Amino acid sequence: MTQAIANQTKTNATFRALKCKECGAEYELQAMHVCEYCFGPLEVAYDYSALRDTVTRESIQKGPHSIWRYRPFLPVATDNPIDVGTGLTPLVRANRLARRLGLKKLYIKNDAVNMPTLSFKDRVVSVALTRARELGFTTVSCASTGNLANSTAAIAAHAGLDCCVFIPADLEAGKVLGTLIYSPTVMAVQGNYDQVNRLCSEVANTYGWGFVNINLRPYYSEGSKTLGYEVAEQLGWELPDHVVAPLASGSLFTKIYKGFQEFTEVGLVEGKHVRFSGAQADGCSPIAQAYRDGKDFIKPVKPSTIAKSIAIGNPADGVYALDIARKTNGNIESVSDPEIIEGIKLLAETEGIFTETAGGTTIAVLKKLVEAGKIDPEETTVAYITGNGLKTQEAVQGYAGEPLTIEPKLDSFERALERSRTLERLDWQQVLV
Amino acid sequence: MTQAIANQTKTNATFRALKCKECGAEYELQAMHVCEYCFGPLEVAYDYSALRDTVTRESIQKGPHSIWRYRPFLPVATDNPIDVGTGLTPLVRANRLARRLGLKKLYIKNDAVNMPTLSFKDRVVSVALTRARELGFTTVSCASTGNLANSTAAIAAHAGLDCCVFIPADLEAGKVLGTLIYSPTVMAVQGNYDQVNRLCSEVANTYGWGFVNINLRPYYSEGSKTLGYEVAEQLGWELPDHVVAPLASGSLFTKIYKGFQEFTEVGLVEGKHVRFSGAQADGCSPIAQAYRDGKDFIKPVKPSTIAKSIAIGNPADGVYALDIARKTNGNIESVSDPEIIEGIKLLAETEGIFTETAGGTTIAVLKKLVEAGKIDPEETTVAYITGNGLKTQEAVQGYAGEPLTIEPKLDSFERALERSRTLERLDWQQVLV
Repeated sequence: MTQAIANQTKTNATFRALKCKECGAEYELQAMHVCEYCFGPLEVAYDYSALRDTVTRESIQKGPHSIWRYRPFLPVATDNPIDVGTGLTPLVRANRLARRLGLKKLYIKNDAVNMPTLSFKDRVVSVALTRARELGFTTVSCASTGNLANSTAAIAAHAGLDCCVFIPADLEAGKVLGTLIYSPTVMAVQGNYDQVNRLCSEVANTYGWGFVNINLRPYYSEGSKTLGYEVAEQLGWELPDHVVAPLASGSLFTKIYKGFQEFTEVGLVEGKHVRFSGAQADGCSPIAQAYRDGKDFIKPVKPSTIAKSIAIGNPADGVYALDIARKTNGNIESVSDPEIIEGIKLLAETEGIFTETAGGTTIAVLKKLVEAGKIDPEETTVAYITGNGLKTQEAVQGYAGEPLTIEPKLDSFERALERSRTLERLDWQQVLV
Repeated sequence: MTQAIANQTKTNATFRALKCKECGAEYELQAMHVCEYCFGPLEVAYDYSALRDTVTRESIQKGPHSIWRYRPFLPVATDNPIDVGTGLTPLVRANRLARRLGLKKLYIKNDAVNMPTLSFKDRVVSVALTRARELGFTTVSCASTGNLANSTAAIAAHAGLDCCVFIPADLEAGKVLGTLIYSPTVMAVQGNYDQVNRLCSEVANTYGWGFVNINLRPYYSEGSKTLGYEVAEQLGWELPDHVVAPLASGSLFTKIYKGFQEFTEVGLVEGKHVRFSGAQADGCSPIAQAYRDGKDFIKPVKPSTIAKSIAIGNPADGVYALDIARKTNGNIESVSDPEIIEGIKLLAETEGIFTETAGGTTIAVLKKLVEAGKIDPEETTVAYITGNGLKTQEAVQGYAGEPLTIEPKLDSFERALERSRTLERLDWQQVLV
């Protein structure tokens, strides 16, 4: 009996092997991410017939209010995962934004308020660190554009694991401080994310550390499936017609897709053709470029954009994202840095949600696709907001206006109010001219 | 039939009047906050026998995953409140922090991840704006130390209400930007919060605006009761032994108490003597001072502390907070700015929760009380964390350490790692010397 099968029998876990996405070779459930035969990426495989027999809508709803209500679909064996309330973020019906864009039924999946560190990365890290503990790691690590470092450091602190994170040296101040505060070891690498990532691959081979997005990547990435499960459950066990999500490595995009597929496969929702559209920043758009060019490979680029959290020039899962956008009749589009800032402001003004640059990218692409007729106003559309604006304040500083400074006196207030109303009227007159 | 009673009959609402906390005079359910006879503060009164007959643990659990599952206990008549997912934040079992402090059963109520703007203010604002809409207001406003402005602007944007907020001009950058982004009118007043508040009282009397914490204050403040309800429900329908919460105006503190009282009154939990301890910053500690001096009135102070969100020198509900701390055998304690920073770091390192200065104050006071033997290690203790550290980055900038800057090469990493381990050993040697 292999170790993998032994694990499964012991714990009723339904994940049964690591499987190469390219050649299908299977491996035991250890810390590895690349196929030894063809160098393809490994993915976790499940026993879906066991899932179909045991999981129901009711059994899920009885679970905790976190990603762990979907534990049978996640690659951990323990009944006692690291649960700090991650997941089940609001699916906000965005009527005011919908009206501005000309859509009828728009939802925002708001991971800007995910717990504990305000990005979707808390999902993947909760899964990765739970699995890391099962596999016996005592030090965890990651290569990060910021959000992942925040999340790994915070959840490692809560779980009492040692932690060393690697980031590009030029990250936003909020993302650096939002890691340091948890007291991990922080390595600021003088280079871009792709260079950080290459260095981490070397470190992973030499040190016995659990790198959440390298040697633990097959487990880690499965956490993003919960963004699919939750939307399905929150829509009343139905799939949407169209999703729009940001593309960095491409992993998130493919895992939302996998989440929908799995729920259909085990009978939790009815099958449906869901269109998948991806969002990139012009300054780092290798997947959008391949999409436009009709290529089925990705040509790496050197990133230059304010959307640092999605600035991955050599995206590991880019080709799989490309494939999904094409086969679902979706799109991949990119937008400029000024459009990203406008996207952040538009979402804040209409829905009261303050997102970071990645979210601004998603909203700007959503707008662009609607304007180009590539999203039907009748489609039930879900836009995925993956991070919080308080972490990338530099991006909108100077673009969000200034307060009116007044003395603590009624007449000072009244003069300021009059001035601001005059300015507003002038604004309108300019609009009308 | 009065309007108040008419409202109640029509909607099955259980709030029946505004009632003076001092003389008991009752008023209709309008926008007012001060008793016309004795100038005492008004509070919402409920029909508890109706609540006892209709509300059960099951009826609450069937409700939405937000503060609105407690709607019968909140002063709104509508069945369609403004719900952006506010509330039901995690009650984290804080084992690592408990061990560091020498407690056995410590929980953190984590409103640093409250939705949508990451502070407990989202609770009170969700209630206030829902009520403002019922009362016919189209412009909402507030006097704020930052978090309240964030929340009012964001939820007003979502609900499509006009918004004008007033803040002291010297607030932290994150709190200013975290308001501006939603495009309200922002008045930055050259003065401290108490001056801002006085100005707003004048404006509230002259303009027909709904000031959430002035003319709508009786409704608004009720939102904080949900911090009591949730803890009771999350502890399995039991009350804790001891709570520690920050004191600004004192309102939060009194409403957690009211929440526990109400749940006991209607039979949702068994009655229990809960000790209430309050936390202030040395630089603004008028309630702690009165407590130490054995006085039953508050002498206003001029605030000077990094804990700006709780820097209220003339706290409206200070005497009521004082009374609760005394009659429950709790304490009110204050801590220095360096202790506040240490409190922020301690919570981050042990539990992976990054809180703002108010939360640092609460943790530092918790530590101080344990060390002084004023919290029994056997008590089930809940510390309320009310806001997020990303909004007050200035406070810990320079105190959280620096990343190790390296080149993207393995040997550069290895040298940095060796250096950091040597430094750690030196740190330990210093500790041992």
